[in-house]
Amino acid sequence: MKRGMGVRENVLRPCKHAVLAGGLLANRAEVVRSRMIPYQWQALNDLVPGVEPSHALANLRIAAGEQSGEFRGMVFQDSDVAKWLEAVAYSLAVHPDPELEARADAVIDLVARAQQPDGYLNSYYTIVEPQNRWTNLADNHELYCAGHFIEAAVAYYEATGKDRLLQVVCKLVDHIDSLFGPEEGKKRGYPGHEEIELALIKLYRVTGNKRHLRLAQFFVEERGKQPHYFAQEARARGLDKPTHWGKFAYAYSQAHLPIREQETPEGHAVRAMYFFTAVADLAQETGDAELFQVCDTLWQSTVQRHMYLTGGIGSQSYGEGFTTDYDLPASRAYAETCAAIGLFFWGHRMLQLNPDRKYADVMERALYNGILSGMSWEGDRFFYVNPLEVDPAVCASRQDHEHVKPTRQGWFTCACCPPNLARLLASVHHYLYSQSRDGLYVHFFAESTVEFQVGKTRARLSQHTDYPWDGHVELKLAVEQPAQFSLYVRLPGWCKQADVQVNGEALSQQEIILSQGYLVLTREWQDGDEVELDFALPVEVVFAHPKVRDAAGRIALQRGPVVYCLEEVDNGPDLHALVLAAEPDFQVETDPKLPVPVIKARGYRLEAASDDLYSTAAPRKVPAVIKAVPYFSWDNRRPGAMQVWIRSELAP
Amino acid sequence: MKRGMGVRENVLRPCKHAVLAGGLLANRAEVVRSRMIPYQWQALNDLVPGVEPSHALANLRIAAGEQSGEFRGMVFQDSDVAKWLEAVAYSLAVHPDPELEARADAVIDLVARAQQPDGYLNSYYTIVEPQNRWTNLADNHELYCAGHFIEAAVAYYEATGKDRLLQVVCKLVDHIDSLFGPEEGKKRGYPGHEEIELALIKLYRVTGNKRHLRLAQFFVEERGKQPHYFAQEARARGLDKPTHWGKFAYAYSQAHLPIREQETPEGHAVRAMYFFTAVADLAQETGDAELFQVCDTLWQSTVQRHMYLTGGIGSQSYGEGFTTDYDLPASRAYAETCAAIGLFFWGHRMLQLNPDRKYADVMERALYNGILSGMSWEGDRFFYVNPLEVDPAVCASRQDHEHVKPTRQGWFTCACCPPNLARLLASVHHYLYSQSRDGLYVHFFAESTVEFQVGKTRARLSQHTDYPWDGHVELKLAVEQPAQFSLYVRLPGWCKQADVQVNGEALSQQEIILSQGYLVLTREWQDGDEVELDFALPVEVVFAHPKVRDAAGRIALQRGPVVYCLEEVDNGPDLHALVLAAEPDFQVETDPKLPVPVIKARGYRLEAASDDLYSTAAPRKVPAVIKAVPYFSWDNRRPGAMQVWIRSELAP
Repeated sequence: MKRGMGVRENVLRPCKHAVLAGGLLANRAEVVRSRMIPYQWQALNDLVPGVEPSHALANLRIAAGEQSGEFRGMVFQDSDVAKWLEAVAYSLAVHPDPELEARADAVIDLVARAQQPDGYLNSYYTIVEPQNRWTNLADNHELYCAGHFIEAAVAYYEATGKDRLLQVVCKLVDHIDSLFGPEEGKKRGYPGHEEIELALIKLYRVTGNKRHLRLAQFFVEERGKQPHYFAQEARARGLDKPTHWGKFAYAYSQAHLPIREQETPEGHAVRAMYFFTAVADLAQETGDAELFQVCDTLWQSTVQRHMYLTGGIGSQSYGEGFTTDYDLPASRAYAETCAAIGLFFWGHRMLQLNPDRKYADVMERALYNGILSGMSWEGDRFFYVNPLEVDPAVCASRQDHEHVKPTRQGWFTCACCPPNLARLLASVHHYLYSQSRDGLYVHFFAESTVEFQVGKTRARLSQHTDYPWDGHVELKLAVEQPAQFSLYVRLPGWCKQADVQVNGEALSQQEIILSQGYLVLTREWQDGDEVELDFALPVEVVFAHPKVRDAAGRIALQRGPVVYCLEEVDNGPDLHALVLAAEPDFQVETDPKLPVPVIKARGYRLEAASDDLYSTAAPRKVPAVIKAVPYFSWDNRRPGAMQVWIRSELAP
Repeated sequence: MKRGMGVRENVLRPCKHAVLAGGLLANRAEVVRSRMIPYQWQALNDLVPGVEPSHALANLRIAAGEQSGEFRGMVFQDSDVAKWLEAVAYSLAVHPDPELEARADAVIDLVARAQQPDGYLNSYYTIVEPQNRWTNLADNHELYCAGHFIEAAVAYYEATGKDRLLQVVCKLVDHIDSLFGPEEGKKRGYPGHEEIELALIKLYRVTGNKRHLRLAQFFVEERGKQPHYFAQEARARGLDKPTHWGKFAYAYSQAHLPIREQETPEGHAVRAMYFFTAVADLAQETGDAELFQVCDTLWQSTVQRHMYLTGGIGSQSYGEGFTTDYDLPASRAYAETCAAIGLFFWGHRMLQLNPDRKYADVMERALYNGILSGMSWEGDRFFYVNPLEVDPAVCASRQDHEHVKPTRQGWFTCACCPPNLARLLASVHHYLYSQSRDGLYVHFFAESTVEFQVGKTRARLSQHTDYPWDGHVELKLAVEQPAQFSLYVRLPGWCKQADVQVNGEALSQQEIILSQGYLVLTREWQDGDEVELDFALPVEVVFAHPKVRDAAGRIALQRGPVVYCLEEVDNGPDLHALVLAAEPDFQVETDPKLPVPVIKARGYRLEAASDDLYSTAAPRKVPAVIKAVPYFSWDNRRPGAMQVWIRSELAP
């Protein structure tokens, strides 16, 4: 986007109606539908043995006066229900299921009954301290939960046409709008955990109600201003600062400065991502080029200083947040699944505003690595924290690894990640394509179809590929009548050689026109026209910036967008004693026990000359075959050590 | 020591009367005398501006009823006073100072007045909860403080002949002995923090009172037995476990098993070291070969699985303790100064029982690295934690580095380390030589003299050297009359080539007789005989065992016993981006700004090909001179990054 240009006119519109037809993403979406959504329903109903009970639905029943008992769980327990509803909505949109829909309708009815007459909706406060509503925005999550209910309502309305939940949240938003805002007599508050901002913009896009947009705008712009609202509300409770006050102070929740003065991602990574997503949304809706520039500066800082190779962000458990530049420890990573999802959301907003592959490259990195790693193949075990190196003995004995679970868990006390995975993967088809004013953008590669509009002509694109395992992609066009438009196809940033054919004829170098990393194919397209792309897909050796301490002297293996890792089950323990050879002779193989391609390479295992801890004798190098598997697929066989950054003779 | 042999007959006796005459150790001892002891006196009296007040002497005055006010500081604040007294005693023994002695006498008088009529001595309990004496051995430190008073009393008695404090502690021990022991009606308790065990054996060696030995033996042997004393005393206080209960449970204080069943160092490192020191002492006093074997097994595990290159031990802040095998992270090390001192004490006991250089090698490693690093050149700034890698920005932003101070501190809330350094370095001459039945052992090298006994003949050895900076050592003998005896001279484990001359004639290979790493020179020695040793002292490249994750792909530089490190002040930031060349062409140089030899070497600095965090383009290697300084001398110029384990083309 050019500086000073109005933002709104040129934005892309995501093709949410695309249909996934096969391949890895379709498989993951199907596992969400068939396994995760039912499993999470069991979890929300406390029916999964051996895992932390959720009590989330019970809380709503108690709030509705239909069950006795106490509130249990986190203050934001409601949001797990909302995210489940949102995932169900996306699933119903592509896979009708009357039984599931009836179940969701019943949950929505329950939510409606838990809503208070004035519109208030939050089971924690309703049950536990109704007199204290809206007195602690910094620490608690009333606005956050409202945001998730709003997102669910919009998704459910769009999927089913039913507006019961939409009416509930509109009433809730009316209530919130009556309390918060710049007007005299209203509180100038905003949430400790951002979420409602982006949700209100989604709501505005459905309702067209400007008050919804203005409230989002207020929450975004008010944040971090002086005198500090979080200090004021704390004082009103007799404290001098928020209850959960840590060394990062207001930066923990990105409230250290007004958004227009922020240049680096600070604090809690998920909060930051949801916030920046909303800021990008606001830039789009208001055409505010400065806000977009703020976002872009934050984006560059995030992806050039604070992002793991897997797209994970947030490198420490304390505050679940960002640290200093280039501080990306592998085994103590936080890299919360939700944070990678948040980065994906933010990147998607940026991409619509400014179709530069740099955003899509990061989204793809996050999706195929730090997001998909959050779930097991079967869809019933989850990582909250996604480290790049694990040694179970270290996790067991070191307190600074307490947050790192060496194997996926059935559920969590703070269960934000599993339903976040479900809602993203159930809607992953939303992200593949965008409609532009002059044609179609193909951002991501997956067996799929999409319909789009070219002027008054309807067109349809079918994509055939086994990406990310194969670099061959076929795009077939069906048009009602020949039509002049542009097809923008992303040439992924990881790809060093892409061959392109149109109707069987290779494009010459002159014919390859690139716009911000997108191949631009502008012509009068005929029905049946075909574009074939061949992305060379070798195993690549990746180096980190030399300022990244924890990757110093190491390399990682990546093939296409997929980062690989070593597992103990394949390579034995002490993965740090393995060294990739200077001529690794990579072989990509199928493995009968794994549904993903594996990499084999030449290397060495270092063996000690003696039992001495320290010696002037170098360890001996014993030839070894090194086997790597896609990072996201680790821990699907048996628990053990894992490592992404590998020692190598190739590392300088 | 041979299995089954009585231990006591063959033990060496440390030559505590040796006199340091110059060189590094004498310099450090002199700094202790001239700077640290006065500085610590100021600290104990709360007269150092800008540092944590100690209040330790005030506590004793309040306990003595001579001052009003409240107890302040740790429950073991008394021990800082005791360790200061002990250091003063060692200093007075070699450097009479009537003013200092009068000051110490006055403190001893105060301690005597703070003692209760029944012999009880502990300012915390006397002031704060006198009714709860001896009810919480697991968490509090009554026996630990008693131990330090005992050590101080023995040292002061030996240094000055004055027995006032000795009488105080004998009365205290009588009181303790009346309460604890295996006899009916006594508590079967033992300290949460070991210390009194080794102190009681020191006391026994002065008093000859068998009850002192038996009480030590009881505390050692009772530890970890079932039913567990710590559980019983907790129950008596209405709890089911000790107040400070962590994930390591009883292992935190080595009370998970009886000592004879322990095989690995567990829990709090300083506690473990003091305990194992006492166990070795007990093996010596009782001739119990099994106890010695237990110690030796624990020693091997400690030094082969759990020791930093610097002799630091305890690799995590949580519990200040040991973790899993080979888990030795450089930047998150705990490596408490006190723990390295404890390892030194333990090694010294083992060495007297079994004169094998393996113990002395570890003592020397600890002394010249992880112990001396605890103090600044000037003696008024201290490290409690001694990491092997520091990045100030990481320390500031990462909670898992909260314990790591990137620069030495003036004092501490828990101020155990500075006085521990003072008492060790004020007595470092105790450790240089041992008398054996058949001659003299030379364990360590320093400009010094020692008198010893050979049968009925008195002999004197003068050692001339600038060790550890120079490998030339001259040993000159003065004997009243020619005498047949053996001189045992340690050939350090780090040394690959030692030339030996006796009276100017080189020893042939046949004449070099080694016993457990000690050169054995047995002959009829004449007055004026001279032994010259030349230890080759090149810069050595050291590799860690390949199981040590944090040293993988790295090397360290060592010259003689001295480990080197890189500092930002010499090399710029991002020390992990420096790579030592395969042909480093080491130069040892003097530096006008540093009182220690520095190493210069050929290497490279890696520079990024772009701002991208990740790239398939390897970083560029730009030639750079790498400058290393002795680890113990770091942070004496200006704060900045530091690194021991260096990336190198030499690392396989």
